[in-house]
Amino acid sequence: MAGKKIAGVLGATGSVGQRFILLLANHPHFELKVLGASSRSAGKKYVDAVNWKQTDLLPESATDIIVSECKSEFFKECDIVFSGLDADYAGAIEKEFMEAGIAIVSNAKNYRREQDVPLIVPVVNPEHLDIVAQKLDTAKAQGKPRPGFIICISNCSTAGLVAPLKPLIEKFGPIDALTTTTLQAISGAGFSPGVPGIDILDNIIPYIGGEEDKMEWETKKILAPLAEDKTHVKLLTPEEIKVSAQCNRVAVSDGHTECISLRFKNRPAPSVEQVKTCLKEYVCDAYKLGCHSAPKQTIHVLEQPDRPQPRLDRNRDSGYGVSVGRIREDPLLDFKMVVLSHNTIIGAAGSGVLIAEILLARNLI
Amino acid sequence: MAGKKIAGVLGATGSVGQRFILLLANHPHFELKVLGASSRSAGKKYVDAVNWKQTDLLPESATDIIVSECKSEFFKECDIVFSGLDADYAGAIEKEFMEAGIAIVSNAKNYRREQDVPLIVPVVNPEHLDIVAQKLDTAKAQGKPRPGFIICISNCSTAGLVAPLKPLIEKFGPIDALTTTTLQAISGAGFSPGVPGIDILDNIIPYIGGEEDKMEWETKKILAPLAEDKTHVKLLTPEEIKVSAQCNRVAVSDGHTECISLRFKNRPAPSVEQVKTCLKEYVCDAYKLGCHSAPKQTIHVLEQPDRPQPRLDRNRDSGYGVSVGRIREDPLLDFKMVVLSHNTIIGAAGSGVLIAEILLARNLI
Amino acid sequence: MAGKKIAGVLGATGSVGQRFILLLANHPHFELKVLGASSRSAGKKYVDAVNWKQTDLLPESATDIIVSECKSEFFKECDIVFSGLDADYAGAIEKEFMEAGIAIVSNAKNYRREQDVPLIVPVVNPEHLDIVAQKLDTAKAQGKPRPGFIICISNCSTAGLVAPLKPLIEKFGPIDALTTTTLQAISGAGFSPGVPGIDILDNIIPYIGGEEDKMEWETKKILAPLAEDKTHVKLLTPEEIKVSAQCNRVAVSDGHTECISLRFKNRPAPSVEQVKTCLKEYVCDAYKLGCHSAPKQTIHVLEQPDRPQPRLDRNRDSGYGVSVGRIREDPLLDFKMVVLSHNTIIGAAGSGVLIAEILLARNLI
Amino acid sequence: MAGKKIAGVLGATGSVGQRFILLLANHPHFELKVLGASSRSAGKKYVDAVNWKQTDLLPESATDIIVSECKSEFFKECDIVFSGLDADYAGAIEKEFMEAGIAIVSNAKNYRREQDVPLIVPVVNPEHLDIVAQKLDTAKAQGKPRPGFIICISNCSTAGLVAPLKPLIEKFGPIDALTTTTLQAISGAGFSPGVPGIDILDNIIPYIGGEEDKMEWETKKILAPLAEDKTHVKLLTPEEIKVSAQCNRVAVSDGHTECISLRFKNRPAPSVEQVKTCLKEYVCDAYKLGCHSAPKQTIHVLEQPDRPQPRLDRNRDSGYGVSVGRIREDPLLDFKMVVLSHNTIIGAAGSGVLIAEILLARNLI
Repeated sequence: MAGKKIAGVLGATGSVGQRFILLLANHPHFELKVLGASSRSAGKKYVDAVNWKQTDLLPESATDIIVSECKSEFFKECDIVFSGLDADYAGAIEKEFMEAGIAIVSNAKNYRREQDVPLIVPVVNPEHLDIVAQKLDTAKAQGKPRPGFIICISNCSTAGLVAPLKPLIEKFGPIDALTTTTLQAISGAGFSPGVPGIDILDNIIPYIGGEEDKMEWETKKILAPLAEDKTHVKLLTPEEIKVSAQCNRVAVSDGHTECISLRFKNRPAPSVEQVKTCLKEYVCDAYKLGCHSAPKQTIHVLEQPDRPQPRLDRNRDSGYGVSVGRIREDPLLDFKMVVLSHNTIIGAAGSGVLIAEILLARNLI
Repeated sequence: MAGKKIAGVLGATGSVGQRFILLLANHPHFELKVLGASSRSAGKKYVDAVNWKQTDLLPESATDIIVSECKSEFFKECDIVFSGLDADYAGAIEKEFMEAGIAIVSNAKNYRREQDVPLIVPVVNPEHLDIVAQKLDTAKAQGKPRPGFIICISNCSTAGLVAPLKPLIEKFGPIDALTTTTLQAISGAGFSPGVPGIDILDNIIPYIGGEEDKMEWETKKILAPLAEDKTHVKLLTPEEIKVSAQCNRVAVSDGHTECISLRFKNRPAPSVEQVKTCLKEYVCDAYKLGCHSAPKQTIHVLEQPDRPQPRLDRNRDSGYGVSVGRIREDPLLDFKMVVLSHNTIIGAAGSGVLIAEILLARNLI
Repeated sequence: MAGKKIAGVLGATGSVGQRFILLLANHPHFELKVLGASSRSAGKKYVDAVNWKQTDLLPESATDIIVSECKSEFFKECDIVFSGLDADYAGAIEKEFMEAGIAIVSNAKNYRREQDVPLIVPVVNPEHLDIVAQKLDTAKAQGKPRPGFIICISNCSTAGLVAPLKPLIEKFGPIDALTTTTLQAISGAGFSPGVPGIDILDNIIPYIGGEEDKMEWETKKILAPLAEDKTHVKLLTPEEIKVSAQCNRVAVSDGHTECISLRFKNRPAPSVEQVKTCLKEYVCDAYKLGCHSAPKQTIHVLEQPDRPQPRLDRNRDSGYGVSVGRIREDPLLDFKMVVLSHNTIIGAAGSGVLIAEILLARNLI
Repeated sequence: MAGKKIAGVLGATGSVGQRFILLLANHPHFELKVLGASSRSAGKKYVDAVNWKQTDLLPESATDIIVSECKSEFFKECDIVFSGLDADYAGAIEKEFMEAGIAIVSNAKNYRREQDVPLIVPVVNPEHLDIVAQKLDTAKAQGKPRPGFIICISNCSTAGLVAPLKPLIEKFGPIDALTTTTLQAISGAGFSPGVPGIDILDNIIPYIGGEEDKMEWETKKILAPLAEDKTHVKLLTPEEIKVSAQCNRVAVSDGHTECISLRFKNRPAPSVEQVKTCLKEYVCDAYKLGCHSAPKQTIHVLEQPDRPQPRLDRNRDSGYGVSVGRIREDPLLDFKMVVLSHNTIIGAAGSGVLIAEILLARNLI
């Protein structure tokens, strides 16, 4: 596979790791070579180490890879490493990899709030990757060896929340009030053990530890402008935008649904039709860059009264497309709408792969 | 059963009708004698006419009742008639019953918006029954025969929404901004055929026809004051309160969960602890009147981070208690909280029975 | 699309019809041109007529086809017509089509028991299509116009049941005792309205009308030999094989699981390993014929203790592969095993398409 | 509470322990005083130690009990101890309790196969308690202190399987062939963590570790006669009865459904009606003894074509009643039928409490 970048996956036996492996199988630009997991799995063939729970079969390309421990020494040949590590382990491991000069795209929450770490939803704020470009250029200019770096994938439900906001803000100006109530899929809680069956059969759980804080905080970083020197992002202040999230777990395997309400700062607010048109016409930069996984239609605006629904819409554009429906006026704010995003693809591993494709397109790896 | 009032049920084979029958079985004050359903069922024993779908067994008291057609002539002996009729049939039938002098407590939406028809959540606005008292007194004063009347049970999710608001408004003054996103049980859609299995397995439906409009409108009637002459309710105006609802169907059999946010008009807003204390201390008038089904604890304030949950909390006080949890500050409005109510008991048939108990306590039947 | 056969679908808006349309979209040998449905849908664009419930999006190739009534006059150009009609309508309509000289592959039960109508599971008994070949040859020899014919797709769970039996019987001789207990997906009950949500949430239904009789009868036709004159099938007698089925509906969208036990007539019975090897080595005739949809691995033998499972295995070979696991000795009969088949693909519409591919390969259309 | 026996529960925070606590709350004959759990919970109030997952609220009687470690020294005052311990811990702990002279009714599998330990389904083989009576009498006759003893509750699905067989065997003689395919509720797998949500949403699992062996073995002990000297049970031999089980997990919270087939040794076999009548007329000894929890109707024979169903029938007689439906002839054996039993009541904790009531009625505690 001449010309392909070598990829590694950390946390390869976990739910996000499994999804990375699926997405990297037969990828035109990346060749999956190194899989890292716990010492319990290290030394085994991947097929023997993993409890595969994806509905797609385990790709042959990963079956016989011998699992390594999560140490940078085993990942030296990698141009890019995708981390699906649990937060308990990600902090130390990813730091060690970065200090070893490795480029990491991480789904863990550990470094999301670091000023100089881009927190990216690839269909929303790819320009924040300038932080990495600026870091590489600086090192180069200083004759230093090429530094490693960490790029963080956003929280899964935040990805769905901000996706439609980007084009709306670009067109109609700032949003100063935003609420979301989520109905989140259980795959978001992973498999070890994940959401217990007894808790989600004939039930919902009105609580996901830390999720609301993540959504309320991360939205203010993702939608924020870069500092002039491109070394960091200038967080939006509470005065600029108030975000309120309420998160629930429901009996859905994949696909987070969010009931959002928003208010534009500028008066008068646009019409429902203007909002719909704006969303339909939005083409993300990743698509313009020709990235393999970038959805042609970033936001699918649905007209049926009862859509989007996870079962029927989560796989649009292979899970990279975000669906928005029931766009209507809100008696309290300006608009109410229902947003659906595939929580393990555009909400996690998929974003990671698309971020890597953007890095490749910008020669940052 | 000396001293018991005679009760009838309309729409006896439907989901709400079945719940009325369960609640009226062995009731200390009501004796179920007459069951009305479609012509298809009329003439049959109830046990042979109904496709019983309740998890409690069909009460023996109803088993052998011969089903009648829904005509007032068959219900003459009834002191009170509970209507679980579908809206398509309720309008004409309930009108005919009222004009025949019969007292009806109806779960149908048909007359909810009529000025002189009380729309009651028995743990919230029993005082609106003064409209009926005033009507009966007027007829008596004019020497006219005792008139029939219709009292409407609110929409199921509205009942859960307004239950905690009543004590808060009494204590801290008006609420001027209110949002709710619901996760509603499928029993709310009835059984003929109700929500199709294929639509709710590994899925949610972000739409319930007419529900948002009902919640936004009915809240403004239930929380409104009576007119001085007690002939009607003075609806709250949009200036007084803005209500925004987003309704979803989830894979739960019974129990509507609602993620609500609210803002008090008066500044400063109370503290979280003050809100909790207010809710805990609230005792509904129905309990003070000694009504059989009135919950001792109207609002159960739960402290666990992940409660209330339908599976674990819907049956508090046999479904008459409303649970509130996760009471916390809202970055946009004042407070966010999760409310759970049993949609076919305090949200429908249960409210009907409790309304009848209040009527009995006030000698209005 | 030169060289492609023209296809039509009857019952196009139903669940089986929708699946035919998905499978025929971009098919290398068939071009979908005519869609038939009820008079309510006739005259509308398909996209406006259907309530699309498949997890894959509605193919563009079907979107704008104007729906016809189910009359042969509108299907004259069709080389093959796939019928997903409900049994209530299939009888008369399919007869009219056959008498108009049209070739029909039908999923309806109406003609399955007719002596001269082949009942086909394409990976099991394609040789029964000789009945059609013989009928066409006879007409040709008699100088008559080319007759229409009906080929029936088997009952969905019977397809899964007989798939592993074919290779076992070929290798180890007759099976004289066969039991199956099914755990069947709700998509098998269609969408109008299909299994009610309230019946399948936190529940199973130990009954599927007519299913056990279908399984016990159809098995004896599918596994039977052709009569010498190839005009019909000589049903297996109860002395030759006793079949006992118990059918249940479970909360699974697609994929029927069956717990089967079987006994070979010949003694001694083979070993577990011999059974596994036999199943692994089996290659169906359709694959040998080069049919587009034929699975390379007809029977997937799984070694994990808890497999097959619908969620993880139903899509093997795009739903044409049948999975068998937990092959073990049975204290009462010879062997017990778990069989999983995709009930709307190899169990219904998929089989129909594969049958048509076999007809094409044998120049019977 | 004068006259009540003192009860203790081991494994009090687990799923079976929680069910024991619910059943013992307000029990007329037992007063719950001592709760044992892991060292992690010991010393805490029960309400603070447990993650309560029952749909009924935590009984006040257990709320403030300080949890003890599972050592007999803390249970000295107990007349009876109910063990919901996990098998990993039950072996050593229950042995220590027995050797300390304590009477234990255990839901763990550890001692079920010991010759001198009765394995009891209280509505089926209470006579096997003679082993305990005989042991107590012997000790008494030898002037030894009163010995402790262990009585085992059967495997949950075995309880449902054997319940209808007892009356049939009594009336029509031995059963020599018995098959069962189970559709088992997830509560049977406990809560730590129990069946993962991702494995049971839109899925079934055709495997429950060790379950089939338990059902096939335990049936032969429960249905067997006592040895003449009443010191043990003479297991039924494979020549006397062949039992074949296939076990599956389905998306049901409580209530195991079993599709069973059986053949009587004696010819001719009875008729379907004779089987129904026999089951209807059966009254278990526990009811004759006046035991509090004994179901008046041990076997509920249901006539609807699609019953029993877990959601509608599991709570018959508060979960102590077993429902049997679809009794019909089997083309291979004699009869097929569907059996439903509440897996945590008559299948576990409920049986334990009923066993204790029988012991009490027989003055064995």
